This record gives sequence, structure tokens and C-alpha cells, in this order.
Amino acid sequence: MSGVVVSIDNKKLAKASIAPLMQLVEEDMKRVNSLILSKTGSEVEMIPEVAKHLIDSGGKRLRPMITLAAAQMCGYEGEGHITLAASVEFMHTATLLHDDVVDESDMRRGKLAARMLWGNEASVLVGDFLLGQAFRMMVEVGSLEVLDVLSHAATVIAEGEVLQLQTAKNLETTEDEYLEVIRSKTAALFAAAAEVGPIIAKGSPSSINGLRSYGNNLGLAFQLIDDALDYGGNAGDLGKNTGDDFREGKVTLPVLLAYRRGTDEERQFWHDAVVDGKTDDEHLEKALEILVHHDAISDTVARARHYVEMARDALGTMPDSEHKDALIEVLEFCISRAT
Amino acid sequence: MSGVVVSIDNKKLAKASIAPLMQLVEEDMKRVNSLILSKTGSEVEMIPEVAKHLIDSGGKRLRPMITLAAAQMCGYEGEGHITLAASVEFMHTATLLHDDVVDESDMRRGKLAARMLWGNEASVLVGDFLLGQAFRMMVEVGSLEVLDVLSHAATVIAEGEVLQLQTAKNLETTEDEYLEVIRSKTAALFAAAAEVGPIIAKGSPSSINGLRSYGNNLGLAFQLIDDALDYGGNAGDLGKNTGDDFREGKVTLPVLLAYRRGTDEERQFWHDAVVDGKTDDEHLEKALEILVHHDAISDTVARARHYVEMARDALGTMPDSEHKDALIEVLEFCISRAT
Repeated sequence: MSGVVVSIDNKKLAKASIAPLMQLVEEDMKRVNSLILSKTGSEVEMIPEVAKHLIDSGGKRLRPMITLAAAQMCGYEGEGHITLAASVEFMHTATLLHDDVVDESDMRRGKLAARMLWGNEASVLVGDFLLGQAFRMMVEVGSLEVLDVLSHAATVIAEGEVLQLQTAKNLETTEDEYLEVIRSKTAALFAAAAEVGPIIAKGSPSSINGLRSYGNNLGLAFQLIDDALDYGGNAGDLGKNTGDDFREGKVTLPVLLAYRRGTDEERQFWHDAVVDGKTDDEHLEKALEILVHHDAISDTVARARHYVEMARDALGTMPDSEHKDALIEVLEFCISRAT
Repeated sequence: MSGVVVSIDNKKLAKASIAPLMQLVEEDMKRVNSLILSKTGSEVEMIPEVAKHLIDSGGKRLRPMITLAAAQMCGYEGEGHITLAASVEFMHTATLLHDDVVDESDMRRGKLAARMLWGNEASVLVGDFLLGQAFRMMVEVGSLEVLDVLSHAATVIAEGEVLQLQTAKNLETTEDEYLEVIRSKTAALFAAAAEVGPIIAKGSPSSINGLRSYGNNLGLAFQLIDDALDYGGNAGDLGKNTGDDFREGKVTLPVLLAYRRGTDEERQFWHDAVVDGKTDDEHLEKALEILVHHDAISDTVARARHYVEMARDALGTMPDSEHKDALIEVLEFCISRAT
């Protein structure tokens, strides 16, 4: 069983997987997927097209799975968790659509970004449509407390995006400031996704706070690991789907650490890349060399590990269960992606 | 020189000391101490008495030293840093006086708390007097930016104390919530103490942000190490001046971790201690046993190490200098106290 694999022994991390989580929520997830498809329907033809492009593009749907697992683990027996899980995924999808416009990204998950196929305007507006649908679904569930949590998350995410505009090309951004951005941009939705589970299940304050904290810290770790993976993770080898952050001149934690630890010459290199767009393959190779030299990728993973440990302890007061084991294995999985 | 001792090699941590910092600010610190003495003067006899009791009680004066070093390292040549350093120490002293009243503490740094000698009322009011003096001194320096930073810190500290009232006896407090408390209660003043240095020195935004982030993360680590030390640190042996938090039923990170990782029986034990005041020597011994069994003290130190690493990187963009080395050695020193 999953519990056997879970261990704080780092050597065993490579075995961790999200399979136990997927298995626990498999039946519910089928219904979430149907709901997602049905709620992208619109007489405006472009909406289902754009939405389908992104929704079919093979994300792991980790956020809705967490909502489902959190509700199940607190003994929820109604239907609301299906609706909320779909709502959470729509919020996430809307963010991706808007992000790609803001970042002028060409690609998303190895496919052309929606904005490259239908244009920026469509991406913005379909994102708004999905956000609207997300709110309608939340309202259907009829819990003011859930509405409060998710609408608050929506605001925080938007704030995070604006904050990111200010820090985006700024190599002097401190780690504290960067954490503030990803806390808003990524962790807030993970936190809300986890928290609404115990809320609709009428769980104890302890389970609500514990799961929110789990989601928040998983979200931070998840984003930091994503940052590390974009430079090939601890192995530092660039396969396909890596180097995107560099090519887009995105300032992520590995770059911030390398910049702070670097020589004047290296700082000039980062400036040329981020501000002047010198980001071809040769530059990327050089970037990787500098990152590895300063342990910037491995230390980003080490930072993520800290949040993973916090997330693990956050679940400490929940009774032992398959769900708890599966959620803890997600933490191990998160780190193992980069190691 | 100090730079030789500084190393990220943990084995060398034991050698770290605040001596290099003390040496760099020695002359300035003499003037800060004179100023502190002169500003506690009042025709109301009790004020200098109470203030002197606390000021003479042998704190390390780390906060004002950081203000001095931060100003010096940014090339400041005026007199304002002396005044601000004294101001920062007064803010700290005022907090201690008020804290002891709120926590009903009998002892402070191995001496009777001021409130045991002069009463709660005097402690509250002399605290207010010192806070007033702190503000007058800040105003003298004439920098609106400095006033903004320090007055903001004063508000945040007060907020932190109120937040702590709410979480004080609550064993279900999450680590996130606890961090929020110590971020306000302790880290905010360290952050402000470090930030006002570059501000009066008209340092770059990068030095202001870097030093603020250094102070913030040092403050978090410092408080967590204090928490660990109150249970004897990694060695886990209780000498004198330990066990105070336990006897006062204070919920700190080691306790929160042990509670979350513990059995039902152990949770009952913590409940009896924190809520019902079962905190005699026998209970303290048992507490220590549980804490060690769950790695709760050593993991508190590990958490502190994370913030120390963040603080170290925060200084990354500052030019190399004796001051930078000394501030980094303070980080090592902070951790070495508990290991």
C-alpha cells in the first residue's frame, strides 16, 4: 500500500507517485471531467474550442484531485465536492490563459499556447468566461464559507499576477519578495483547493486549518520545483520542455540565487538575458553552467523541501487514513520530480 | 579575520561568534549606550529605575548593533545611526516590559521581571514611556522614510502580540500561523533595524531590500532558535534558564511539531501542560522526552537553518566587506547557539 512507500528517507523519494491519490479519487474525477466538459459548452463557438484546447492538453489536474481527496478524507458524502473541484480547475485554467497573454508565451505544456491559435483577445475573454463559470459553480454549492475562501483566492491570485509584473524583469528581487509572488500566484489556489474540502464536509477547525496549510506549502514547493525543473532539476540536463523560463526572461528562484551568489560578470550575463533578451541556446547552456556552479538549482530544491516538511506536519493532526498517506505521497512526488 | 571562519560548512558553525560584529560597532555602541542611559532620565523617579533594571540586565543588544553595522556598511558618515540604534533598542525594551505583563512572567534573563519588583502598571507605563522616547529619537533624525519603516514595525509588533493572544494556548495552531506571529512579533523589528541603516546612508534600493530581507529572516531564525534553546537546543539538556516557555504554557514551534507528530496520549499530555498548567519538573522531563523522540527540537533548528540560508542570500548583492562577513557570521552564530 502507499503507506509503505511514504518515508522521510530521501533515498526513497524517487518511488513516490501521485498514483495512490489518483486511485482514491478516480470515480469522482470522471464526474469532474464530465462536468468540466459540459460547462465549457457555449453557443459562442470559439469558447468550447479554446477551452478544450487547454483542458485537453494533459495537465495532471492536481488541484481538483486535492479538493476531492480533502472532502473524502473528512467524510463528505454529498455532491458539492465534484462541483468545487471543477470550479478550482476552471480558476486554474483561466489563470493559465491570462498568464500566457501577459508573458507573451508561445508554448504551453509542449503545445502552441491558445493565444497563438486564437489570439490574445480570445484568450483573455475565454479566461474570463471560465472564471465566470467557476463562480457560478461555486455559488451552486451554496456555502458562503466556501465562496469566501475561493473568491478571496481569486483576488489574491490576481494581486500576485500584478505583483509579478513589477518583479518580472527585476533581478534584484529578494527571495522574500519572490515568495510573496508565488504565495499569491500559485500557493493561494492550492490552499483554497485543499481548504474547501473540509469546509463542505463540516470538518473540524483543525482539519480546515491543517489542510489549508498543507495546500499553501505544497503550492510553494510545487512552484519552486517547477522553477528547478525548467532548468532540468538537480540533474541539470535540459531535455525538451525545459529552458522556457530562460527564453522568456522569467526571473525565478534559481536565477535569483545565482544572481545573488554570482560575480559581476555573471550578473551582467543575467542582465543581458533577462533585460536584453540574449537567450539563445548558447546562452541557455552558459546559464545552466552558472546555475550549477552556484548550487542554485539544488538549493531551490532544498528550499522546496522545507515547505514540503511544513506541509507534512500540517497534516499531523488529521487521523491516519489512505487519503492522508496519498496526500503525503504527493509531497514526496513533488520533490522527486526534480531529484 | 572573521571571513575565514565564515563558511557554509555546518561543522564549522560552532566557531561562529558575534565578536566581529561587536568589534566593528564598538565605538558607536559606546555612544548608543550613553544615549540610552541619558534618554531613560526622567524626573519621575520610577522611570529610570525600571528602565535601568531591564537595560542593565545583559541583553546582547543585537538589534542596535545591526542598525549600526548596516549604516556603516553603506558608507554612512553622520550621527543619525546612533540615535536610530538607541531608538530600536528602546522599542525592543518596551516590548519586553509589555510582554512580561501579558505573559505574567516572573523572570526575565535570569532576573526577576520588572513587574515583580514594581508591578504591572509600572511595567506597562514605563514601556509606553520608552516607546514614546523611541519615537522622539526617530523624529530627531528627520527622515520620513525611516519614520515610516519604524512606525510601521511598531504597529506590526503590536499586531503580532494581539495575534499571539489568540494562538497562545491553542495547540492546533499551524506552523504557518505560528510563523505569522513571530514574523510580526520578532522579525519585524530585526527587519526594520537592518533596513534603516541603508536608508539613512542613502544606499541603493538593492541594499535596502537586501538588508530588510536579511533582518526579517535572521529574526525568524533567531526566534526559532530561542524556542529550541528553551528546551536545551539540539543537545536537549536542560540547564538553568531553560524550560521557561514550558512552565508558562507557551506554545512554541517545538511543542507544535511534537503535538502534530504525537500520539493521542501525548496530545493529552500537551493539553494538560498548556491548558491545565501541569508543568512541574517531572512534566518538563517528560516533555523533553517526547520532543526528542519526535525530533521536534532538531527540526525546529532545521527550520531556522532555512531562514538563515535565505538571510545569507539576501546579502548576496552587497559588495564584500568586513561588515557583510560579520553579519553573515551572526547567522552562523544564531544556529550554533542551539547545536
